[in-house]
Amino acid sequence: MDNLSEVLRHLRDASAFISGDHIAGKLGVSRTAVWKYMNQLERYGYNIDKSKGKGYRLVDTPDRVYGWEIDRWRTSARIGSKIIHRDRLDSTNAFAFKQALAGEAEGTCVVAESQDKGKGRLGRKWSSPTGKNIYLSVILRPSVHPSIVYPVTFLSSLAVSDTIDQLTGIKATLKWPNDVLIHGRKISGTLIELSTEADMVRFVVIGIGFNINMQPEDMDDLIKATATSLFMETKKTFERARVCGILLSNLERYYDLFKADGSRAICDIWEERAQIRGKHLEINQMGEVFIGTAKGIDRDGAILLDIKGTTKKILAGDVNF
Amino acid sequence: MDNLSEVLRHLRDASAFISGDHIAGKLGVSRTAVWKYMNQLERYGYNIDKSKGKGYRLVDTPDRVYGWEIDRWRTSARIGSKIIHRDRLDSTNAFAFKQALAGEAEGTCVVAESQDKGKGRLGRKWSSPTGKNIYLSVILRPSVHPSIVYPVTFLSSLAVSDTIDQLTGIKATLKWPNDVLIHGRKISGTLIELSTEADMVRFVVIGIGFNINMQPEDMDDLIKATATSLFMETKKTFERARVCGILLSNLERYYDLFKADGSRAICDIWEERAQIRGKHLEINQMGEVFIGTAKGIDRDGAILLDIKGTTKKILAGDVNF
Repeated sequence: MDNLSEVLRHLRDASAFISGDHIAGKLGVSRTAVWKYMNQLERYGYNIDKSKGKGYRLVDTPDRVYGWEIDRWRTSARIGSKIIHRDRLDSTNAFAFKQALAGEAEGTCVVAESQDKGKGRLGRKWSSPTGKNIYLSVILRPSVHPSIVYPVTFLSSLAVSDTIDQLTGIKATLKWPNDVLIHGRKISGTLIELSTEADMVRFVVIGIGFNINMQPEDMDDLIKATATSLFMETKKTFERARVCGILLSNLERYYDLFKADGSRAICDIWEERAQIRGKHLEINQMGEVFIGTAKGIDRDGAILLDIKGTTKKILAGDVNF
Repeated sequence: MDNLSEVLRHLRDASAFISGDHIAGKLGVSRTAVWKYMNQLERYGYNIDKSKGKGYRLVDTPDRVYGWEIDRWRTSARIGSKIIHRDRLDSTNAFAFKQALAGEAEGTCVVAESQDKGKGRLGRKWSSPTGKNIYLSVILRPSVHPSIVYPVTFLSSLAVSDTIDQLTGIKATLKWPNDVLIHGRKISGTLIELSTEADMVRFVVIGIGFNINMQPEDMDDLIKATATSLFMETKKTFERARVCGILLSNLERYYDLFKADGSRAICDIWEERAQIRGKHLEINQMGEVFIGTAKGIDRDGAILLDIKGTTKKILAGDVNF
């Protein structure tokens, strides 16, 4: 824990005012250094009451997804062990991809308050209003062959649906390949981007968009009819840093499972959780529509669709059900 | 064709001196402009005899793989339709990958006279002395699902072996996954790098290292015992731009086949050309050694190895035979 987070912790732990002397003593720094940290925290948006006689008191915490705020809720060992926070990014995935190309380690997480060019699957836009939702990307470096890596696409929706359950008790619906829905409306989506050699995965970037405190008035017309948020489902506001911390911890749990038991295991868990077997589905695969009954998920993460007795493997597309 | 290439063509077509007036007339530019083009060609290393009375004469062409030199031999429509030439690059693949990320179109080819950090498969080094060999990377954007894209790894070795045959009549050996050997020594290797989503290929960069005029004294100690070049096999020097032109044309032919007939077709051609069926192989897969008889290549491009009656699928590794 760095000094700034440590100062913040002392402010939080104190029931009222805490003296600069006390913090200086605990950290082994000068009172002037403590004063500088207070100024720094104020620049980050923390509201601090400074009293000459009594010391410092934390009045208010900004609603920001700073790494040290996420760390208060995070139990993961590697995923999120480094968090890069930015107010604005074009896209957390594009930024994380460049960091990964430059050698950034597994587990590093990029998080932004807003995205100017938030990306969804297949070149689509992801609506990213400032300070309302979670826009987060994680770098993974699994040492597996490319042909068995694609089920990592399921890790994020499993982690998100666990997070929703833990925070609200709501059982979300999983929609192939990686959406999470509540009452038929999308609350989270994922964009997976990979860099591989022919026989080796270099890295995977898992990008997660997760609607938290967004309200109908924050929404583009494009998604108004189809999107929801934790707030809209519960009428409660959630601390986004806390949601991030829980989400990253859940993500690590599923990633460890993927590494230990392989992609088939993750496909099985997703298939079970999505209760996809036997469902009547209509799938639009690049303009071609297939209608049939889902038989399950194969080892590539593809849907196996029974169409009048013939099994069709659907690799990419949009599901209606 | 741009003006510079056009001027060069007129110099080449002329048996002796050609007047500045004549070229100026053909191009519809001033004599001063022609004079400037001549200076530019000189800066590119062309040796031009300039005579006040007689005009210009091309004395000598530098041994460089400029795009316009490659174009003289290239019959492909898209692959190589744009060529980015650099004297030195860290790695043509790393450069091409960045260009592709920034949106560079399919078919663009990056070529360098030397590489400071030439890369081979699995993080290995590729020996890249200046001006001796071909270091070239091509950007492809096949609209296929990631799970069927990996056999693109075979395109380059098929194209290289055809090129060798056309230039020398030598039938090279293919070694899985993408090496080309002559008399048991490596003459070409490939590094494939891909950027994908979970259900869509963004782009593929095919990097080819192809030893042309390299002599034993140009070689690192590391590869002296195992590498060869066209020069070492034939005692002839080859114009690298010509080899590039033929190679890019062959590459397009196989890429068109991949797009029309799919990855299984390319695997079949490679399997047949490599005559791998029934071969006794020893394969080192990340430190684990498998010994058996090759049954063929599966749809992922993996080797199927019969080990005492059990079929093992080998996804990555190094083959000894």
